[in-house]
Amino acid sequence: MAKKTIIVFSGEYDKLMAAFIIANGAAAMDDEVVLFFTFWGLNALRKPEATPSSVSATKSGLQRMFGRMMARGPERQALSKMNFVGVGQRLMKRVMRDENVMSLTELIDSAREQGVKIIACTMSMDVMGIRKEELIDDIEYAGVAAYLGEADESNVNLFI
Amino acid sequence: MAKKTIIVFSGEYDKLMAAFIIANGAAAMDDEVVLFFTFWGLNALRKPEATPSSVSATKSGLQRMFGRMMARGPERQALSKMNFVGVGQRLMKRVMRDENVMSLTELIDSAREQGVKIIACTMSMDVMGIRKEELIDDIEYAGVAAYLGEADESNVNLFI
Amino acid sequence: MAKKTIIVFSGEYDKLMAAFIIANGAAAMDDEVVLFFTFWGLNALRKPEATPSSVSATKSGLQRMFGRMMARGPERQALSKMNFVGVGQRLMKRVMRDENVMSLTELIDSAREQGVKIIACTMSMDVMGIRKEELIDDIEYAGVAAYLGEADESNVNLFI
Repeated sequence: MAKKTIIVFSGEYDKLMAAFIIANGAAAMDDEVVLFFTFWGLNALRKPEATPSSVSATKSGLQRMFGRMMARGPERQALSKMNFVGVGQRLMKRVMRDENVMSLTELIDSAREQGVKIIACTMSMDVMGIRKEELIDDIEYAGVAAYLGEADESNVNLFI
Repeated sequence: MAKKTIIVFSGEYDKLMAAFIIANGAAAMDDEVVLFFTFWGLNALRKPEATPSSVSATKSGLQRMFGRMMARGPERQALSKMNFVGVGQRLMKRVMRDENVMSLTELIDSAREQGVKIIACTMSMDVMGIRKEELIDDIEYAGVAAYLGEADESNVNLFI
Repeated sequence: MAKKTIIVFSGEYDKLMAAFIIANGAAAMDDEVVLFFTFWGLNALRKPEATPSSVSATKSGLQRMFGRMMARGPERQALSKMNFVGVGQRLMKRVMRDENVMSLTELIDSAREQGVKIIACTMSMDVMGIRKEELIDDIEYAGVAAYLGEADESNVNLFI
């Protein structure tokens, strides 16, 4: 048994798939897994529904604009390639269903059930203007020092 | 002597260069090296010639379409930046030749001669609709558990 | 205390931020940190001013063209997403200032003051046609063998 960390930076649909396939695989082998969400990766942790206006009110105009332009939740993230305004992403999802591959949402649920730890990077939240109220429940919040502490205890550390 | 693993995810020409330069360097230092090809990285393992119709016949319509839209073989992959519909990639190849840098194909051949292990991720093959018959010979096939087994024995693990 | 290496490959503004936030965090914890700049990452090490013609004269026509098309210095690099011809990057910089997040230039200065080692990959310099005279002072130059030597001594190795 050994620990694994993954920095989830890019947040694209296919890269999220890769991160959660590895996380589930490692958790199934009784590894401890820590996913550290930074920058665009944070969008995958946002609740799909529109940000409540009480939360938007705490943001600057720029942050509100930034927030509105970025897709909320894992299923709306684009592919890193061949996305074609979402068509490629929908095609990939359909092929996955045909081949009985778990969907991204199922992979995330499975990872959480297996105890994979999800940490949102607080410094990136400031940069992206993302508030805790926008993110899914039962996750942790920490900075780079916490990441490094986890990474020091891990034998596999990836940046995706 | 220590083991290294690289997940080859993106499959762009310049990122393939980086992966194989590291793989060759490590192999030259007597390290064991495992390259695990997933998602778009699989395209670099496809034979350059058109997929035989007997193989295409085993695919769904969507998978056939996906397969046709993705470039086959390492030399046709785009740069991750400044590709300009292939012009940037051709310029980079020409500069490499002028500077006597090994081409990507030569780097791949050299890696294989040095015993670098190439594994195609079977789960990604399902997602991308890629068949074994389309991929180059003498490679291995495995899933995420095999990757994690190799990574656990390695002291450097990269995601490219 | 343990060593960390990061391969800085992509060189986009947000990925440079991530690399230098990790580097500063690790250095603050008394870790030794080595940043190995390759391919597009080298552009972040270029001096912002135009390449002197005496240096350009040592390049081939292709290399000169390549060099001119790539932005020089960290502050001019695009975001990996939502860049919108530089508007997104300027917005992110302004939000960072509002939130009192260190700028990329400040992060780089701080990293260097803390003794983070910066190495430019000589093989990529050949491929990109970049000369030592174009890069900032007081950095080191080395190839993949040096990277692997550092990585073998490190407990966290990332590719960004």
